[in-house]
Amino acid sequence: MGAGETSPGGRRFRLDIAYDGTRFTGWSRQPDQRTVQGELEAALASIFTSTPPAPTLAVAGRTDAGVHAVGQVAHLDLTRAQVAKLARPRRGKRPPGHVEPSTAEALARRVNGILGPSSDVVVHACAEAPEGFDARFSAEWRSYEYRIADALALRDPLQRHRTLWLPGTLDDRAMDTAAIGLLGLHDFAAYCKPRAGGTTIRTLQEFRWTRDADGVLIGRIRADAFCHSMVRAVAGGCVAVGEGKLEPGRLEELLAIRARTNDFVVLPAKGLTLMRVGYPPDGQLQARALLTRAKREPDGLAGAV
Amino acid sequence: MGAGETSPGGRRFRLDIAYDGTRFTGWSRQPDQRTVQGELEAALASIFTSTPPAPTLAVAGRTDAGVHAVGQVAHLDLTRAQVAKLARPRRGKRPPGHVEPSTAEALARRVNGILGPSSDVVVHACAEAPEGFDARFSAEWRSYEYRIADALALRDPLQRHRTLWLPGTLDDRAMDTAAIGLLGLHDFAAYCKPRAGGTTIRTLQEFRWTRDADGVLIGRIRADAFCHSMVRAVAGGCVAVGEGKLEPGRLEELLAIRARTNDFVVLPAKGLTLMRVGYPPDGQLQARALLTRAKREPDGLAGAV
Repeated sequence: MGAGETSPGGRRFRLDIAYDGTRFTGWSRQPDQRTVQGELEAALASIFTSTPPAPTLAVAGRTDAGVHAVGQVAHLDLTRAQVAKLARPRRGKRPPGHVEPSTAEALARRVNGILGPSSDVVVHACAEAPEGFDARFSAEWRSYEYRIADALALRDPLQRHRTLWLPGTLDDRAMDTAAIGLLGLHDFAAYCKPRAGGTTIRTLQEFRWTRDADGVLIGRIRADAFCHSMVRAVAGGCVAVGEGKLEPGRLEELLAIRARTNDFVVLPAKGLTLMRVGYPPDGQLQARALLTRAKREPDGLAGAV
Repeated sequence: MGAGETSPGGRRFRLDIAYDGTRFTGWSRQPDQRTVQGELEAALASIFTSTPPAPTLAVAGRTDAGVHAVGQVAHLDLTRAQVAKLARPRRGKRPPGHVEPSTAEALARRVNGILGPSSDVVVHACAEAPEGFDARFSAEWRSYEYRIADALALRDPLQRHRTLWLPGTLDDRAMDTAAIGLLGLHDFAAYCKPRAGGTTIRTLQEFRWTRDADGVLIGRIRADAFCHSMVRAVAGGCVAVGEGKLEPGRLEELLAIRARTNDFVVLPAKGLTLMRVGYPPDGQLQARALLTRAKREPDGLAGAV
């Protein structure tokens, strides 16, 4: 089916998803690997065994192995028979005052039920998608956070799976200055793992470094979309600045080179979390999707980090 | 050595410690088990191999298997030879502007260095202890948090190792009312795993249930000390109230029974974190330690949860 189209009588649903990326080989389904998409699609397949085809997921941010998410967004299309199956009340006694969940709520509950208690991936919300909604192509922006505990920060063992611990002290003001220099529309080839046929031109809308109450450095970054490994590369550039190895202005200069250099290292995935995906108002979803498709290659890089 | 005494020329140090309890069989050293005390004392033993005896730790809150800590406090006594060993600058070139760390800082750095990067136990601070300080017996109070995500809460997979996920919706106001009913000086035998010769009389100074920004229920509790499994028992009582199985006033009534009942279940360790230990002003440390020892049995229950 094409963009925004579902089968006759079918409906599209939006899923809001959170995961601890530690034990996943990233979002995208891969043979013989445990992936977020793979786990969720397996749950969906088991719900709809008797009403094929098994639904597939389209996602806003195709996160790499080890990257976490608190606000990932995906969509799936269900056929008329699949919607009917969800709407049918399940067997068993109802307690007094019981209200049947909506179709969307029923879907989220059943997926979470299959994933099990204390799962490392959870569906936080499920809703029928507005007209023209495409989780990937309708998205206006993605935001991420990168967490670093240097020698000045309190290193909380309870957060160690999502925080990079670095020895030494980082100059947070220099890092913030360097980050601001990257804002705007640029070719980020110096900060991207190149992919054949993919553009590396992106608009960096926000990028700041601050310390939280524990002194942990939080890099907040937002762009229309990110090329592959781009967040971890620009964060790595900032760390090189924070360590005094690069001048803050150097990160902006590297943009002109348009190729990867050895000035900095790409940071590990564990410190990175996809925070939110932004969409335009409902009436502009379809137009936004068409615009995004026109700007990027058919199987493009939107949101891959 | 007795309370507050160190060997001639020796010194006592206070350690502030945080850990993720998931992979530990609790605080207290046990043969063939991975414990927090065991890991820390092994690190200390390796630092002082050439200057025995290996230091041992006395702790404020002897947490159970699976319980976490952000503000645990322990002390250890070093001999004159051990202090001298720490004060001696280590071999190797110093960068310009290098300032030698204090003895206490050097101890924390070396322990953390042995524990390794991204360890599940970290020494947050080390300082020479004030006169009369005893991590366990000088403590005036311990505070804990219990985290529960019910059906109303956003279940964050990144926090799942320190949050109990419960199905259904808990009545947080009823839980808070029940908690308040337990405040004050009581015999908490109805909420304690009994230990021979141990008193179960405690003063509950604070106990409230609130929801955080994600709707996660946070039980904040503070007492002079806790009996074994007491926090998880009173939290379990509150959950039974929140589920509508018990009236809020029932928890207070249970105190009069002075024995364990089947009205509620003791909650799992994973939701529990030791937050802080409170000490009196420096001048009152010794007096407080004497008072605590007089009130409790020699090898008592202070702080075991």
